Amino acid sequence: MRYSLLAGGKRVRPILCLASCELVSGDVSSAMPAACAMEMIHTMSLIHDDLPCMDNDDLRRGKPTNHKVFGEETAILAGDALLSLAFEHVAARTGPKVPADRLVRAIAELGSAVGSEGLVAGQIVDIASEGRDIGLGELEYIHVHKTAKLLEASVVCGAIVGGGSQSEVERVRKYARCVGLLFQVVDDILDVTKSTEELGKTAGKDLASDKATYPKLMGIEKAKEFAGELVEKAIEQLGHFDAARVAPLSHLANYIASRHN
Amino acid sequence: MRYSLLAGGKRVRPILCLASCELVSGDVSSAMPAACAMEMIHTMSLIHDDLPCMDNDDLRRGKPTNHKVFGEETAILAGDALLSLAFEHVAARTGPKVPADRLVRAIAELGSAVGSEGLVAGQIVDIASEGRDIGLGELEYIHVHKTAKLLEASVVCGAIVGGGSQSEVERVRKYARCVGLLFQVVDDILDVTKSTEELGKTAGKDLASDKATYPKLMGIEKAKEFAGELVEKAIEQLGHFDAARVAPLSHLANYIASRHN
Repeated sequence: MRYSLLAGGKRVRPILCLASCELVSGDVSSAMPAACAMEMIHTMSLIHDDLPCMDNDDLRRGKPTNHKVFGEETAILAGDALLSLAFEHVAARTGPKVPADRLVRAIAELGSAVGSEGLVAGQIVDIASEGRDIGLGELEYIHVHKTAKLLEASVVCGAIVGGGSQSEVERVRKYARCVGLLFQVVDDILDVTKSTEELGKTAGKDLASDKATYPKLMGIEKAKEFAGELVEKAIEQLGHFDAARVAPLSHLANYIASRHN
Repeated sequence: MRYSLLAGGKRVRPILCLASCELVSGDVSSAMPAACAMEMIHTMSLIHDDLPCMDNDDLRRGKPTNHKVFGEETAILAGDALLSLAFEHVAARTGPKVPADRLVRAIAELGSAVGSEGLVAGQIVDIASEGRDIGLGELEYIHVHKTAKLLEASVVCGAIVGGGSQSEVERVRKYARCVGLLFQVVDDILDVTKSTEELGKTAGKDLASDKATYPKLMGIEKAKEFAGELVEKAIEQLGHFDAARVAPLSHLANYIASRHN
């Protein structure tokens, strides 16, 4: 659990969660357990996705994948324990300053991001699509579920824990949907334009496994244009909030668009 | 998810959860989501434990195991989704009659029953013990974590959701610890005394894989005696409650002791 959780990474989900809590004027420290839960769930999905029967990947965050070091059975169980710990952590560690009804809403949001209408749905369709021609619609389904839903949950849970109103929560949800899609488009672009050393994970893997990607389906230039549109649309959603509190989330959208690994 | 969750089984955990809610005079219908969550988690642990890299089992509840029917990757993902759904179900489906702070406590309890101090801990030590001589202490560690913790969580969550006092919750916890151990002792006895047809799962498997079991470590007669002592101790804990409400949980302890599959 520690090996994969503490292997570094960009911590985009925890940052989104804390920034969103701040956006709605919440106490950032009270969103820390939720922020950690996002990273636990993300890490769990990476460990399980890397397994031999899934994407069969040897390298992750610049280090050998979990099952390469500890064996398949331990990797599966580490993922299970991280998933369970994520929920437990939010429930047991958030502290009494946050009303319990907010925690219950955040936990329900978290659950729907992981299960058969979230991460797992995306991974199932992703696996089923390998070696088969798929269209943009199906590609988007995969990314919305594999990537965007957890980014969305990160932002939404931050806003819920921070005490945001229902309409504020829905606004950050829209922001997160754009950023989620953006994240995957950029990932796809990096996979074909960067080296394994630059990425810290195996480059060119999507091409080799004949996976559908945005550059493959719309060409690299159009994919970059699409990324630009998504950044704009994301930042638009933040217009309703206090300008001084918007900076972290607008910078984050720009960072995701311009990242190099 | 449906294939394994709806494959039958004794539903001991949901029954324990509902009976415990009733014991503390709670509204039984409000404990139904928690009861279902227990079965989801139990099913998830069976799916993952049956995988080729774990116990490599072909038969479960009289049917081919999940990975035999759907493949390893789908089996892993079905387990992940069931685990996540369990938490989501308690948070999103319990309804407004149960105060949110009870749900948060129940979710924390659930999490600790699954993670690195619960089911996963038991399975890790179980795997590490195969083909190696272990003592009664280590055997008990495995069973407390693999089996007893989730039975305990079922009873404790039922009492929490039902509005039991702290001392009532601790009394049902003690009951559950005895029943949890009892459950495993009986399981071990059945493995060596019953046929595959009678059990609905592969019989004699513990012996074949050289696993430590109670009959192996203390002999079949002493193991049966130990089971008898555990039933008595479990029922003793119920003495503090209203006699009319105690029947389901005391019968259940007797049922677990005398079950044949």
